[in-house]
Order: sequence, then C-alpha cells, then structure tokens
Amino acid sequence: MHNNILNTIKELSENKEIELPFIDSTIENAMPSTVALQQIVEILTGILYPGYFTDSALNKKNLQFYIGANVDKVSKLLYEQIKRGFCFECNDSEKDCELCNNKAQEKTIEFINRLPKIKHLLKTDVEASFLGDPASKNRGEVIYCYPGISALTNYRIAHELLLLKVPLIPRIITEMAHSKTGIDIHPGAKIDEFFAIDHGTGIVIGETCVIGKNVKIYQGVTLGAKSFPLDDDGNPIKGIARHPIVEDNVVIYSGATILGRVLIGNGAMIGGNVWVTHNVAPNSKILQRRAKEQEFIGGAGI
Amino acid sequence: MHNNILNTIKELSENKEIELPFIDSTIENAMPSTVALQQIVEILTGILYPGYFTDSALNKKNLQFYIGANVDKVSKLLYEQIKRGFCFECNDSEKDCELCNNKAQEKTIEFINRLPKIKHLLKTDVEASFLGDPASKNRGEVIYCYPGISALTNYRIAHELLLLKVPLIPRIITEMAHSKTGIDIHPGAKIDEFFAIDHGTGIVIGETCVIGKNVKIYQGVTLGAKSFPLDDDGNPIKGIARHPIVEDNVVIYSGATILGRVLIGNGAMIGGNVWVTHNVAPNSKILQRRAKEQEFIGGAGI
Amino acid sequence: MHNNILNTIKELSENKEIELPFIDSTIENAMPSTVALQQIVEILTGILYPGYFTDSALNKKNLQFYIGANVDKVSKLLYEQIKRGFCFECNDSEKDCELCNNKAQEKTIEFINRLPKIKHLLKTDVEASFLGDPASKNRGEVIYCYPGISALTNYRIAHELLLLKVPLIPRIITEMAHSKTGIDIHPGAKIDEFFAIDHGTGIVIGETCVIGKNVKIYQGVTLGAKSFPLDDDGNPIKGIARHPIVEDNVVIYSGATILGRVLIGNGAMIGGNVWVTHNVAPNSKILQRRAKEQEFIGGAGI
Amino acid sequence: MHNNILNTIKELSENKEIELPFIDSTIENAMPSTVALQQIVEILTGILYPGYFTDSALNKKNLQFYIGANVDKVSKLLYEQIKRGFCFECNDSEKDCELCNNKAQEKTIEFINRLPKIKHLLKTDVEASFLGDPASKNRGEVIYCYPGISALTNYRIAHELLLLKVPLIPRIITEMAHSKTGIDIHPGAKIDEFFAIDHGTGIVIGETCVIGKNVKIYQGVTLGAKSFPLDDDGNPIKGIARHPIVEDNVVIYSGATILGRVLIGNGAMIGGNVWVTHNVAPNSKILQRRAKEQEFIGGAGI
Amino acid sequence: MHNNILNTIKELSENKEIELPFIDSTIENAMPSTVALQQIVEILTGILYPGYFTDSALNKKNLQFYIGANVDKVSKLLYEQIKRGFCFECNDSEKDCELCNNKAQEKTIEFINRLPKIKHLLKTDVEASFLGDPASKNRGEVIYCYPGISALTNYRIAHELLLLKVPLIPRIITEMAHSKTGIDIHPGAKIDEFFAIDHGTGIVIGETCVIGKNVKIYQGVTLGAKSFPLDDDGNPIKGIARHPIVEDNVVIYSGATILGRVLIGNGAMIGGNVWVTHNVAPNSKILQRRAKEQEFIGGAGI
Amino acid sequence: MHNNILNTIKELSENKEIELPFIDSTIENAMPSTVALQQIVEILTGILYPGYFTDSALNKKNLQFYIGANVDKVSKLLYEQIKRGFCFECNDSEKDCELCNNKAQEKTIEFINRLPKIKHLLKTDVEASFLGDPASKNRGEVIYCYPGISALTNYRIAHELLLLKVPLIPRIITEMAHSKTGIDIHPGAKIDEFFAIDHGTGIVIGETCVIGKNVKIYQGVTLGAKSFPLDDDGNPIKGIARHPIVEDNVVIYSGATILGRVLIGNGAMIGGNVWVTHNVAPNSKILQRRAKEQEFIGGAGI
Repeated sequence: MHNNILNTIKELSENKEIELPFIDSTIENAMPSTVALQQIVEILTGILYPGYFTDSALNKKNLQFYIGANVDKVSKLLYEQIKRGFCFECNDSEKDCELCNNKAQEKTIEFINRLPKIKHLLKTDVEASFLGDPASKNRGEVIYCYPGISALTNYRIAHELLLLKVPLIPRIITEMAHSKTGIDIHPGAKIDEFFAIDHGTGIVIGETCVIGKNVKIYQGVTLGAKSFPLDDDGNPIKGIARHPIVEDNVVIYSGATILGRVLIGNGAMIGGNVWVTHNVAPNSKILQRRAKEQEFIGGAGI
Repeated sequence: MHNNILNTIKELSENKEIELPFIDSTIENAMPSTVALQQIVEILTGILYPGYFTDSALNKKNLQFYIGANVDKVSKLLYEQIKRGFCFECNDSEKDCELCNNKAQEKTIEFINRLPKIKHLLKTDVEASFLGDPASKNRGEVIYCYPGISALTNYRIAHELLLLKVPLIPRIITEMAHSKTGIDIHPGAKIDEFFAIDHGTGIVIGETCVIGKNVKIYQGVTLGAKSFPLDDDGNPIKGIARHPIVEDNVVIYSGATILGRVLIGNGAMIGGNVWVTHNVAPNSKILQRRAKEQEFIGGAGI
Repeated sequence: MHNNILNTIKELSENKEIELPFIDSTIENAMPSTVALQQIVEILTGILYPGYFTDSALNKKNLQFYIGANVDKVSKLLYEQIKRGFCFECNDSEKDCELCNNKAQEKTIEFINRLPKIKHLLKTDVEASFLGDPASKNRGEVIYCYPGISALTNYRIAHELLLLKVPLIPRIITEMAHSKTGIDIHPGAKIDEFFAIDHGTGIVIGETCVIGKNVKIYQGVTLGAKSFPLDDDGNPIKGIARHPIVEDNVVIYSGATILGRVLIGNGAMIGGNVWVTHNVAPNSKILQRRAKEQEFIGGAGI
Repeated sequence: MHNNILNTIKELSENKEIELPFIDSTIENAMPSTVALQQIVEILTGILYPGYFTDSALNKKNLQFYIGANVDKVSKLLYEQIKRGFCFECNDSEKDCELCNNKAQEKTIEFINRLPKIKHLLKTDVEASFLGDPASKNRGEVIYCYPGISALTNYRIAHELLLLKVPLIPRIITEMAHSKTGIDIHPGAKIDEFFAIDHGTGIVIGETCVIGKNVKIYQGVTLGAKSFPLDDDGNPIKGIARHPIVEDNVVIYSGATILGRVLIGNGAMIGGNVWVTHNVAPNSKILQRRAKEQEFIGGAGI
Repeated sequence: MHNNILNTIKELSENKEIELPFIDSTIENAMPSTVALQQIVEILTGILYPGYFTDSALNKKNLQFYIGANVDKVSKLLYEQIKRGFCFECNDSEKDCELCNNKAQEKTIEFINRLPKIKHLLKTDVEASFLGDPASKNRGEVIYCYPGISALTNYRIAHELLLLKVPLIPRIITEMAHSKTGIDIHPGAKIDEFFAIDHGTGIVIGETCVIGKNVKIYQGVTLGAKSFPLDDDGNPIKGIARHPIVEDNVVIYSGATILGRVLIGNGAMIGGNVWVTHNVAPNSKILQRRAKEQEFIGGAGI
Repeated sequence: MHNNILNTIKELSENKEIELPFIDSTIENAMPSTVALQQIVEILTGILYPGYFTDSALNKKNLQFYIGANVDKVSKLLYEQIKRGFCFECNDSEKDCELCNNKAQEKTIEFINRLPKIKHLLKTDVEASFLGDPASKNRGEVIYCYPGISALTNYRIAHELLLLKVPLIPRIITEMAHSKTGIDIHPGAKIDEFFAIDHGTGIVIGETCVIGKNVKIYQGVTLGAKSFPLDDDGNPIKGIARHPIVEDNVVIYSGATILGRVLIGNGAMIGGNVWVTHNVAPNSKILQRRAKEQEFIGGAGI
C-alpha cells in the first residue's frame, strides 16, 4: 500500500464533505437496510396476491398458514426497519430510543391492519389493467408481469406508511419500484381506486398529486410542479400543494406533461407529448399540434 | 401478536379479493419462477454470445464443451418453466398433466433448435448498433454494455417461445428486460434483422407491431395503439392488429410517438418528440414545429 | 438428449456469428465481471457517503478503520477488473500481460487518490438536489433515495476512470446506473459541480457533452447528437464533438431534446417536451407551442 | 487448452469405470439433492422443537401459522426427494414414473402424520440428556447445542422414512448427522425412548441393533457386527441380524466395542474401552483390566 | 392438503411436548443465531491470525485498518448475540430488557479487550503444534489446516465469554468446533498455554478439567467424569468438580480414557487406549497390557 | 466506540504474536481460498462419479459436454489455488511470480491428466466397500452416502497433488475430508487399490504409511508414529519414515492403534481396541485380552 494511498485514506477519514448520519452513535444505531426492505416488500406482495409468488401452490386449506406465517414474519422485519427510520429522524435531538421502539411497534401493528384495505385497492387496479389492455391474456398475467401493478403495489404500501408518519421508509419503497419499473410515484400522492398504468416507464407522479377513480396513464407522463415559491434564503418552501388534481375517468396519453396545481376535469383526455400548465375542463380533449411533414433528402443526420 | 392482527390474518386468508391461481392444486403445481427464468436467460445469453459472459476464456477447443453443457442445463431448466406455464393456463379445465409434460418437452427441444437462428439475428443487431453509434469502441463493448442489445436478446428469445405458443413465459422474459433497460418490447411484435436501439429507456413496441430490416429507434419512442374497438361489455377486443408497420431503413428519433395501424414507409425519418397517427410516405421526414423562444425573466418557476 | 439437439450444439459451437473475445486465450484471461464491478461501486459508495450504506453506525472514532479497510479492499478488486479491461483491449496485438498488470496497478492507485475530489463534487450535487427539491426532507434522504445522486455517483467514478484511459470499465459502470435509474450518462461527458437531476428516468447525456455549474435537468431530457459525418465506408466517424454545451445555471425541463454541438447559454431555461437543434442565448426561455384543446367526444380511442 | 487435456476429457467421457446412475434418462430424472434434504431436515427440526431454530419468537398465537406453513412447505420438498429416491431405485427395470409419483405422495403424507410420534420420542431423549448430564444448564441448551440430540433427530426422521420403505433418502439423512456430529446411527436400527448420547463423536450403531428404553451411550462406542456369513461368491449376505440387542437401562462408557448379535441385559454397565463379543447378564458390569503402570524414563517416544 | 395433515398440524401446534423458549414473547425476542455466531467466530479468527483468512494480503500498513474495521464489526454482531443469550436465560422471571442490553454492551467491550490475551495463548498453541509434529511444514500450515488449532481458537474465545458469565453462547461456540473437528472441549475447562492437540477427532475435555502448560493430547482421548452424586430426586448435582487435573508437560496418547477428579502428575505419559480412574504419579508412564497374539485361521469374521 | 477498544485495536495491530504470511506483499498475493478449494473438490467429485452429483441426469450423449466443461472450469480454479500455494511457500525468498505462474500451469495440466488414474483407483474402493458391507444396498448408495468414499476421494486427489510437489493445498484438501467425515488421512500416505473404510470416524493414517491392496479399516483406527528422533534443539526431525507398513489383505478392527514403522504382514487381522507397536506376522490375528466381568452393584458411577 503506497504512502499516497495512506494520505488519501486520512483525507477521506477527516470527512469534511458529507455529514455522518449518526454523530455520536451508540452500538445499536443503523441506517435502514434496503436489503431488508426489499424482502419486506416481497413478503407483502406474496400476502397481497396469494398464490402468485410462491414456490408451491396455495389452496383454501393451506392459505391461512401461509398468510399467518408471513404476516408474523413481515411484522418483525418491518418493525426493525420502522424503528431505524424513527432513529434516523430523531438523530439531532436528545435520543429516547424507548420512545422510538414503542412508536415502531404501534405503527407496525397499525400498518398490518391496513393490509386488507391495500389489497382491496390493488384488486381494483388489477381489474383496470386487465379490462383496459387488449394485450392482456388474463388477470394472472397482469399480477405477474405488469410493471404498473408492481409500482402501484409498492406505492400503496408506502403511502400507508407515510400516512402513519413513518419517516424515510416510504420513499425508499417507492424508489425501489422506480428503479425496477421506471415509474416514479411519490408516496405522498393520493390515488383512488381502479388506477391503470400502461407500459409505465418514465411516469412521474409528484408529492401533492390527487388522482381520482378510474384514471389511466401511459408511459412518459409527468404530473409535476410548475414552480414553487422560495423562502428568504432562496430555497424552495417545502410542503406546498403544487401538483395536479386529476379527477375521475381521465386518460393521459404517453409523454404528456401536466405541471402545477391545475385541475384536470372529470373525463378529460390528454393527448400524447403535450405540455399542460392550466386547468382542463371536464370531458375536454387536449392534442399536440400536428407535426410538419416534408420529404426526406438523405444523409445520416436530421 | 395482538388479537387484531389475528383478525387481519383471518380476513386476508378469506381472500375475497384476489382469486387463487390454483383452486384445488395438487402437490405438484407451482407458478413459473422468475428466479429460474432469470437464470435461463443468463445461460442462453452465454450461449448466444460465447466468451462474453463467463468467468474464464473460451477458445475453439473448449467452446464445444461449454455450449454442450449449457444447452443441456438450460433445456432442463426451461422444460420445467414451460411446463409450469402450460399448467397455469390449463388451470380452469380438467387437467391432463401428462399432456402438459409432453408439450413442454416438445416445445423445449424445438426452441433449442431455433437458437442458431436467434443467434444470427442478434449478430445483425450487434452490427447495426456498432456501425451506427459513433460512441461505440468495438463490438465487444456493444455486446457487453448496450441495453438495446440486452433488450433485443430477451425479446428474440421470448418471441420464439411465443411463436411456439408457450403461455406466460414470453411476457415474463420481455418484462425482465423492460425492468433492466426501460425498453418494453411485447414478445408478439415482429422485428426483422439489423435492428438498432440507441439509449433505449422509455421505448414501447406494441404487440402487433411489424418492423422491417435496418430500422433504428432512439429512447422514448412509442409504437403504440391509437384506439381499440370495444366488445358489447365495453371491454377491449383482444388480438386485433392495432400497432404501426415500420418498413425497412426507417429512423425514429427520441420521444416520437406513432400510434395505430399506420404504415411508416421505407426510408422515412421521424423526428424527435412528434406525435404521428397517420401513414408516412417512404423517404419522407416528419419534424416537430419549432418551439417558441423568448427571453427569460427569472424566478424559480417557468 | 435428442439427435437434433446434438446437431444444434455442433452448429452453435462452430460459432460462425459472434467472434470470440479471446481467440487463443491462455488460462488467465477473462472478461470483466459485472458482479465484481457492482461490488466495487457499492464499496466506493460506502466510502464516498460514510455512514449511509453500512449495517452499523460510523462515528469519528471508527471512521478511519472503515475507510482504510474499504479503500484497501476496493483497491484489490478494482485492480483485477482494470487489468481485465486492458487485457480485453490488447487482445488482437501481441500480448504483454506484464505491461497490462503494471498499468492496472498504476491506474488503480491514481484513481484511489482522486476519490477526495469525486467526493467533493458529489457533495455539491447532494446540496443542489436538497436545496432544489421541495419534496426532499433532508440531505440523508437525498443520499439514500435519489436516483439522480445514484447515477451521478456512478458517472463521476466512471468519468475519472475514463480520464485515466481505462477501457470498457467506465461504460459498464455508467450502464449499471442506467439500468438502475433509467439515467444514461456517457462516462465521457464533462459535468461540473452542483448538478441536479430530478426524477431522472429517460435522461440521456451524450459522450461529448460539456455541462457547467449549477445546472438542473428533469426526467426525459436528451442531450444528444444531431448528425454525424460518415467515413468513406458510410460508417460514423468516431470521437467528434457532437453533443451540446450547456453553460452554468441552465434548467432543462422534462422531455426536452437538445441535439448537436449547440450552445445553451448561461441561465437559459429550456421548457418541457421541446426540440432544440440551435444555439440558445443566455437567459432566454424556450417553450413548446400551446397544445390545441377541444371538447372530448367519447369512445375508448383518441 | 492443451491437446493432452482433450485426450483426458475423451477418456473420462468414455467412463469405463463408474456406471452412470441413469442409463437412458429422460429429461426429468435427477439424483436426490443433498442441499434439498439439508433444508428438509432444518424445517423438520424447526417443527419438532418449535421456537428454537427461528429468527423470531414463537408464542401460542403464532405457533399454528408457523407449524402449518412449514408442514406445507416441507411436504412439497420431501415429496420431490422421495420421488427421486424411488426413481433411482427403479432405474434398472421398466420405468413407471406415474407409480413412483403416486408412491411418493402417499409416503410423504404418511410421514407427515408420524411427526407427532417422532416429536414425543425426541422429547424423551431431551429429558434423558438433561437429567443425565451435570453440565447441562437447561433443556433449551440441550436442544440447541447437544450433538446427541442433533443426531437422534436425524435418526428418528430417517428411521420412519425407512419403515415406509423409502429408498436411499434415510441413509443420506443419517449420514448428514454423521458428518455433523461424528455419530453414525444406521437408519435401520431400532431405538426406544429416553435414549441419551453424551459427547457422541465416534459412536457407531449398526443396521440391525435393537436398543431398549433409557439407555445411555458415551463417545466412541461401537455396536457393530462381529462377522457375517458369505454367499457362494464370497460376498456378505445382506440383511441378516448381526448387531447387539441392548436392553433397557444399560449404560455403555466411552470407547467400548460390542460386536455381534449378543444380548446386553437389562441394567448392565459396560466400562470404557472394553471389547465385548458375548452376551452380558442383566445388572452385570464389564471393566477393562487395569493398565500396567511404570516409571517414565524420558525421551519423546513411548 | 389432506384432512389428516390438517389434524397433524393441529396436534403439532398444541405442542404438548416441547416447551416454547419464550412463552409470552414480545416482538423483539429471538434465540441466538448460529449463522451469526459462525460469522463472529470467522471474523475473530481473522483478527487473531492476521493475514491468514482474508482474500487479500495484509501488511504493516493496512493491518490497522483491517483490525479496526473488523473489531468494530464483530463488536456489533457479538453484542446482539450476547443480548439474546441473556434474554433467553432471563426468560422465566420478570423481564428487564434494558438491563440485558446494558449487560450485553458491557460484556462485549470487556471481551474485546481480552482479545490480545487470547491471541497470546493461541500463539503458544501454534508453537506447540508446530514444534511437536514432524509432519508440519511451517507455522502457516498449522494455523491454516490443523483442526486442533481450530478447536482451541473456538475454545479460548468461548472460555473468556464463559468467564464473563455470558449464557448459552460459549457452549454454542465450542459445539461449532466439535462439529467441525470432532474435538469436544467444554468452555468451562481451564487450559494453560502451549497446548497441543494432534489429529484430534474424538477428544473430550470435560467441564471442570484443569490442564497445565505444555500438555499434548492425541485423538480419541477422554478427560471425563467417573461418577457424579445424585440429588434427592435421583438427578445429578450440577457444577461439582469431577474431571481430571492434568499437570504441566503431560502427554496423553490416542484413545486413552481418564475419568474422575484424578491428578495426572507433571511429566506423566499416558499410553494409548488405556483406562485410568486413579491418580498418576509425576513422570510415570501408563501402558495397556500387551494384546494376545495368535495365528489367524481364516473366514470373514473374528 | 470506547477508548479502551481503540487501545485494544492498536495492540492487536502491532501484531507481536503471529507473523504475517506476506511481509511486504504486493497487491496480488493472497492465501489459498478454502471456499474455492471446496468448489474444486465438488467439481472433481462430479467428474469422477459422473451422474451422481448433478442436478440433472447424465447419459452417454451429454456426458462428454459435462466432463469437458467441468474439466475446463476446474482447471482454471485449480490453477489459481496452486499458484497461491507456491506463492505462500516462496514468500521468504526473493519472489519470481512468473516462475510460480508457470509452475502452477504445468502442475494443473499434469494433475488433470492423472484424473483417469484417480478414477480407476476410486472405482476399486467403491467395489471394496460395496462387497464388504452387508448393509450396502447398491454401488450408488456407496458413492452417494459413504464417508469412507468421500474421504478417499479427497485423499486420492490430494495425494496426486502432493506427488506433484504442490505446497499446502493437499493438506487443506485432506483436512476438509477430516472435518466432514472424521477420517484423517495425511496426503503423504501411500494407499493401494481396493481400500475400504467402514464408518470411519476417528481414523488416523499418518504421513509415511504404506498400505497395500485390499485392506479394510474400521472406525477409530490409528496408524501413527510411536516416537521420533529429536534434533539438537529438541525439535522433531521432519520427514523420517515413522508410520506402519500394512501389507495386502489386512483387516484392522475398530479402535486399534498401530504405532511406529512396524510391518503388518499379508492377511493379518488386528482386533478392535488393541495397541500394537511391533511387527505382526502374515496371517496372524491380534486380539485384546478379555475384559473382566463382574456383577453390577448399582449407583450412577462405575
């Protein structure tokens, strides 16, 4: 090992750049584990779609054992990660680990009890995707293969954790789905039942979006913020409603961008590749202007 | 374990929402394994690009052992998954597992025998990417790093399985590539030789697309359906040709959206970010209208 | 094993299609391992953001051991992969493995000594994302969850390796980030400090891009080539500057496409979904023309 | 790869030495998997000693889910291995895979239903070890740490499988315990309740042994065959009773060797390092003759 | 799933046989993890024999980082397991988890600080094996391959933990070595420096043994208890000194059995396969009586 | 992290006790990997007993591919470990890595070419165990389950490596078998064909043993050294013939100890638990004197 590597190690250890997450950590602190959270989401997915993600078939007799054992297992794993989430957040103040432990237990139990509600919502999403896609062969294929369902499963889990005020964990869970599917739904968004995503890659749904029932969104759609007020230091003020409200029965085609706290009225249709920063009336239809067309001269470029 | 968790388990075990894939399953049934299919695709990739994805170097002497052993290994793995695919599909009717077993054996052997054809097609795709990208250093880099080649490898494997009428498995294999690369090619699409994908993320190629020779597509391109007829229940009629036909020598730039059973003629060039829902003449060129330009006033928003 | 499978194996082993990477390989050659490179990036990420990606908490006392042990470990792993990269490149000529070994050692040490510089740049990127995103809760969340930071981490590592003229490895590292985040930054691009990527999926930043300080880019943005000159054989000439130069303080909104060696002046704002192939003046603002709006008639299509 | 290695491969492939287990195997045959059997024994151990070998605590409420899910899981795994066992045995004759499948299902169910009996016997073994060893702190330590209990668990599982006439699998399971503990109990031996093994390494209990209740055996004890009749070809005749019968309440100290179909009577005590090839009367005591003792002269040897 | 399996599950879940380790466990309890303890012993072994069990070479410059990082890592892992050990023991009484946590932290730190002492003792053991075995090539081979050193490493770690009154964990650690090497040393035994074990399989060293400096023991040796007093219920009284005291410079040859609280005097030599239940004078020599010899008649038996 | 732990780390890093294996190691040195050697032995076992240790069935058609691919794979793995072995040995002198590399290549190829000879010897061992054990059901069970065959496989591999003067690796390979089976055969021993080990645990066969054809050994047998001359420093002189010579057709029963360079003549039978330090004539029979027998009085002790 060369001496200049030793100097580099010294310089990196002084760590002038990135603040350590736990300044005076005790032996117990740790950041949430993405590996554990991945496992948690897999177990929850097995519970929410029984029979689809197991090595052996489930039937009416063994289902109760499978569900019971997996709810038990996921409770312990989730409790640990929720505790780490609280622990990370309370880092700057005087710590009360006992309090974090208790909150983590309470939130875990409450989350488990919301699983039937999550399952109901996801069933409506599966229906919407199955009925709305001519390429789908059966509901099993939708559950098994559709990235939209995968992303919504993570989102609906994460959204309930966010409602329970669990820090950090919800965002990690939606970012897992973002990485896997290219669909980026902020856990703070509110999405009602029968939501369908087709293809999905490149979809962005912002933190303060509100989406009604029976909405369908194609790949590359952005529901984003148009602008946001700055505070006296020139930094964005956090937490202000700044993303679209999409009412029931809206369809948004691929590549459309809708920005700001605008209202997309019931039954509207937003065409592909358009850019919308204003309200859209119910049942109206927005299309891109027609592209110009001309004869092609040749050469490799455009 | 709290009593309300016990109630939640009971409620989840009643499973009113999601139908079980195997209602009265015997001890043998199981859903296809995505882990096994991932391994299958990795072994096939090693066979199709010999020497690129192994821990040790292959040469003319040891190549036959490597190919032989891996064809043998992948046959067994694939047979098992194809069987599960048939088993999943025949679930509702009276089962004849013997029949599924036999079909799985036959389809596996037939698929293996199509590997040389798949390899030939992929070689043309590698050529197209190497020759068409000024950033590519050599063919090895294209094989090793290009997501377009990765997605086409999965697609060409899946397409042959779909032609052999194997259920479920082809879609799982293309969705694996979709997750890894952001390129979503339905296994039903027909794509001829020398196909090049640059960057790729966000590409969608629909089920009934037909693509000719020597076509190049950039990131964010959609070849999708414009509309689809509904049946008497208001559900889409499945299996109708509804995606574009792209003839030879077409280039489609990033973000373009082409919808419906339209014909993009030989040698046409579709510019970026355009929205096309009509036929395009051979050798013509479609461009987006020029964006308006104005001085920027300031502030964080737009 | 059927006889026609034996014939298929024979045909695949003749390997007429894909050239073997090592024609007369000795026992030692091997292609770079993506598994090892994944591990290398994970260890480097742990070094660059100390405390965020470990199972146990780091503090001022144990930090030096953690950094030292991981720098030591990653040096060995990286040396092996860099050697394989050189080995792959020198394949056609008369081999001098001793030379490749020595170069690999030298490049590894030099790369390690550039880690503090990489860390400094990444700190500015974290600041830019934290300050610029109203949804971000704290810098820890940005480091832990933001795909833009993940992609920039891989890019900044890969870019230094490319500056050191290490073959193949830089591209593999940025493609890993591409696969994980949907953000495709070529390792050859030059990106200055305080770079922010929001959401990110579908971003493409080409090989010869030059990006100034304090630039922000949203999902789906392409900084690509417009056209490229062909050589006498009709193939693209490699290595020519053909991607945009983006000056300081520019913001580029989602879905914008900027092509060719154009100059986007200081402080310019490029609106979403636009298509730019010409220079943009400093402080100017480019927007898409307003989409037409019309009442929606009904039916499933558009 | 050198040419003489190619010749070696050819020679090894001609395989004149070791007969292949499946001469004309179809795609489905495979030898039992020791990895799967290891997993099976681990799951069964978790079922038999609930709460001791899990990552999370079991209590009266979640026990039913844990047991149910694990019985379900182990049934599928065991069925597959039992099927392979039958398949291996029926190899030489005309195969009837359907028959092997059916037998495997039937034997699996029957075995599962004998688990309560196995659990009862093992409880008596735990009691015997706990009460008989002054070094044991509590029953939990006995279950968790004692190699004797580990070996008896495997033996009692294997013995039931052998009674069900499952081929090959029982021997593999007892050899796993042999490898782990150095205790070699043939699955054919009959061992009654309250059996205690102390330390254990080097114990051999032969195929036709019969051991009563409340017997205790120390390390290095052999209950073996003295001689066995040969057939006309000079090979041993298989299946003849040739190992000791040990009645209730016998203690056998370390290193004792008892050979042949002798009867060790109720309450006898066999001293350490003795060699017994004759019947021992009830309540008698066998000791080694006293070693001679002499002054030690020095030097490294004896 | 057949109905009689459901009954079996019900019967197993009633769990009349084996008491659950945690009757009313909270979400946090768990039994010690043998997987984690295996990892702990591996890391400690790497610390105690620096450079021998790593993937990359250690030298004077990187040694401090390796030691520091591994001490830090093993502290956290060990703390968790020690806590579980205390938790298991305090199960019956009213729990005070805070107290167990604090004890676990304190014991972990104290144990770490005893590592230099353990390392010193193990160095003397390595010397004794190297100098005493004509087959040993160098000290590296002794450290790397000798089961005696492996067993002593686990024993010396476990013995310090036992002196610190950590429950259950010490016994698990010595049983790991027992399983791996066939050498069964109770963690309670006291063994002084320069202890050599040759071959080792079948060695038993009981809980209350006391062994002096420079003692050598061969395979199959038992230092056991001869008898132990029973309490009023007929059960052995725990914790009484009942194993041999072996003074300095004793050699005990293979298969010897020494039972009871006897004193083997300084420099004595115990021959192979003897049975000793009485004191042996310093410098004396015990040998087995000569076996009778006779002409062999023939036949397969004895 | 407490300050006294920092002091402990400092003390451990000074490393006064255990000499580092590589004092001034370059980036490339590493100790042999037991994980890699385990994998090597598993692959070799699959080659030597074709069809027994694979997930899928081998037949005459696919056997060549399996053998070829595994010989190729194991060559690379073995080469790396043999190189490390030479590297470890040449550590003290001036290094010539090129020389070690070349020697490793040469030894690897020579070893591979000895595999058919090893396979032939092991076939005779399988025959001997099958014919000599009334409990064996068929040759497959012997190959699959018998620890004696497992130990001999490792020994015969290791012995050839030792004959090729490969350092360290042979001993590691026989110690793996020792750990797994309790059978400790030094790789230097010479063992002729048709060797049978029954049960095996506790067997020790020393470095300079010479064993003829058709010999059978039971558990707990020692073929050891009686004494060894010391050099002027009081240390054993290495490499002197000091273990027994066992001629053809000898049977040695369980627990027998034979020490020193004695000759056990053709056809002799050594009874169980005897202690032999002198020559034994051909066809003679050695038995332990009869143990004394007396009535048992009672009590827990002896």
